[in-house]
Amino acid sequence: MTTAATIWTLWIAVRAKQPLVHNITNFVVMNNSANALLALGASPAMIHACDEVEDFVAISQALVVNIGTLYSEQIAACKLAAARAKATGVPWILDPVGAGATPYRRAAAGALAQLRPNAIRGNGSEILTLAQQTQSGQGRGVDSLDASETALEAARQLATATGAAVAITGAVDYVTDGQRVVAIANGHPLMTRVTGLGCSATAVIGAFLAVEAEAFLATVAGLAVFAVAGEIAAEQARGPGSLQVALLDALYTMTQDDLARRLRLD
Amino acid sequence: MTTAATIWTLWIAVRAKQPLVHNITNFVVMNNSANALLALGASPAMIHACDEVEDFVAISQALVVNIGTLYSEQIAACKLAAARAKATGVPWILDPVGAGATPYRRAAAGALAQLRPNAIRGNGSEILTLAQQTQSGQGRGVDSLDASETALEAARQLATATGAAVAITGAVDYVTDGQRVVAIANGHPLMTRVTGLGCSATAVIGAFLAVEAEAFLATVAGLAVFAVAGEIAAEQARGPGSLQVALLDALYTMTQDDLARRLRLD
Amino acid sequence: MTTAATIWTLWIAVRAKQPLVHNITNFVVMNNSANALLALGASPAMIHACDEVEDFVAISQALVVNIGTLYSEQIAACKLAAARAKATGVPWILDPVGAGATPYRRAAAGALAQLRPNAIRGNGSEILTLAQQTQSGQGRGVDSLDASETALEAARQLATATGAAVAITGAVDYVTDGQRVVAIANGHPLMTRVTGLGCSATAVIGAFLAVEAEAFLATVAGLAVFAVAGEIAAEQARGPGSLQVALLDALYTMTQDDLARRLRLD
Repeated sequence: MTTAATIWTLWIAVRAKQPLVHNITNFVVMNNSANALLALGASPAMIHACDEVEDFVAISQALVVNIGTLYSEQIAACKLAAARAKATGVPWILDPVGAGATPYRRAAAGALAQLRPNAIRGNGSEILTLAQQTQSGQGRGVDSLDASETALEAARQLATATGAAVAITGAVDYVTDGQRVVAIANGHPLMTRVTGLGCSATAVIGAFLAVEAEAFLATVAGLAVFAVAGEIAAEQARGPGSLQVALLDALYTMTQDDLARRLRLD
Repeated sequence: MTTAATIWTLWIAVRAKQPLVHNITNFVVMNNSANALLALGASPAMIHACDEVEDFVAISQALVVNIGTLYSEQIAACKLAAARAKATGVPWILDPVGAGATPYRRAAAGALAQLRPNAIRGNGSEILTLAQQTQSGQGRGVDSLDASETALEAARQLATATGAAVAITGAVDYVTDGQRVVAIANGHPLMTRVTGLGCSATAVIGAFLAVEAEAFLATVAGLAVFAVAGEIAAEQARGPGSLQVALLDALYTMTQDDLARRLRLD
Repeated sequence: MTTAATIWTLWIAVRAKQPLVHNITNFVVMNNSANALLALGASPAMIHACDEVEDFVAISQALVVNIGTLYSEQIAACKLAAARAKATGVPWILDPVGAGATPYRRAAAGALAQLRPNAIRGNGSEILTLAQQTQSGQGRGVDSLDASETALEAARQLATATGAAVAITGAVDYVTDGQRVVAIANGHPLMTRVTGLGCSATAVIGAFLAVEAEAFLATVAGLAVFAVAGEIAAEQARGPGSLQVALLDALYTMTQDDLARRLRLD
């Protein structure tokens, strides 16, 4: 069973190692994801040119791939970087933002999932879409896009099909490796009124992947830390603007006691 | 006459409908525009690839086109999205950032204005430039770039030529449909020391266009809400950094009474 | 000897002239760099299309070139803009972000440094890399990447080779023109936990280049103002999130007395 003590130990390892986390991410969240990683104790870099992503991922300790503001060259860069990461043993995480919104996006997310990320994080709809994309040619309908049971079953399938730890974030976050499931009941509803917090959570998981070989544990740790930081921030915030600021502060100032006292894992 | 009660009713409709607002916008303001829309109660998406903008605008309730950090593919994406929006009845707003600064920018803004946006928002110089661009081949000089009367006359002409509601923002904001004119005397000078607040105001108008078919009224409502939020924020801020944060908070926490008490429409 | 009074006089000039500062910069910091320039009293524009950078730099009072999130078209745009700046007497500054991380980045930074920027700002590793790039074909090893003496010697060489004022930022900032050296012992360690503050410092130097023809003095002034603002902000901040906000506030509210009392030049 994952405990606050285990998660804290991993966080200490992040701060000690200050892993270089290579992000190919969207333009909306670049600043916040970099700041979340810095507040956490990691060392972020945002590098997306096809001419250098392979060189850069090779000197990094983790790779974060996020398709938020997708365009053709970015897809190419993501594929190059993911392939090199896989070849050189650099762990990587996929954030399939808006995977189901357009055919273009669905195809890109599906193709990246085939490159065997160590972890995948999305909301229920994104994970459902991706689970369908990775099952050869069948259009199994889903009755309800927001039924977390349906999404969780999809997450299990996706984890089994890709070998990734799969996280569904929402009111409660779930992480599965296809067999085990952990639920994290932290966070705060106001977090949904700030753009890109899911993307920042993905980046934070990336930092934990750099220090923990078991992707399932790293994913639980990253989400737990981020959700607890959001919860602390929400208590201090007057609205979504100040929440975003306070969240970065909380990622920097959170104590082991804060984490232990607040963590609600199941 | 537009009243605070009318504006509030529209805002309630935004919060109830949570319209998906498709933004093709500049890289400087993507994060803040998304956050302004979330704080307001809308659902933003930043999508700019030519490969998917047409699909995405078709599932959106409004489109925001902003030429701030222009480049060739973005112009193409804006044109595709605007044309599809027009064809499918999705209202759209144009923000001709820096329209007069370079020939490239002037041409792009002029071409987009021809695609019949439902609303246009800019500062005085931008509206003057655009009014000239939309008048066939004449270079009518303007005596003073900052004389609001001159810009207002240009706004009237632009509204008549394009069919759009046209807003000029500045110390006082003006909205015209070519005949009617409303002045909004809210806001605060410190807002000019924060980048991209005009762009965020445009995005907020986009959300109101999603719930109100009369573009003139939607534009007045969007600007009024944004300017009052800025005014509340300026009272709490210690400088432009905290203003930006407080503005997002105010968009989330503003009450009907705040709006009614502060609104200065004419 | 540069004094707080001299720096303050230059800052007053920035506020009076409100120079248009053209930035071709990375996507991570666009918002913060623009806001830093606005808080300082300058007028920022983020313009990167090859189709318009030459026209735009010609109407600007300074140019900032930053290679953070590099891609091919941006390199081309940087070269076009720098060449035009040089041809029309617009001062410009180069920020060689991550210059040594990949061959692609090393080549781009080296090529830009050849275009004779008026100033260059980087951390120790970046300046060391760039100094090597500008020395014809020799791979002189550096014993320690973080020894500030080594970096300072490289900065001197780089200044001599390019004619630029060269700044190394770190716990203590150094500025040299190849002969003179000034050390600025302001700032705060928490600033390293906020992304892109170095980039914002570069942009602020750009604003001072617009009002002071001697690049060495402008660079010292820009760094001093920025470091003191960071120091004030760190005293008010609860973590890196609030530091970023407070820094913008401090750039707007700092008094001459604040500057004089805190400045530690040597």
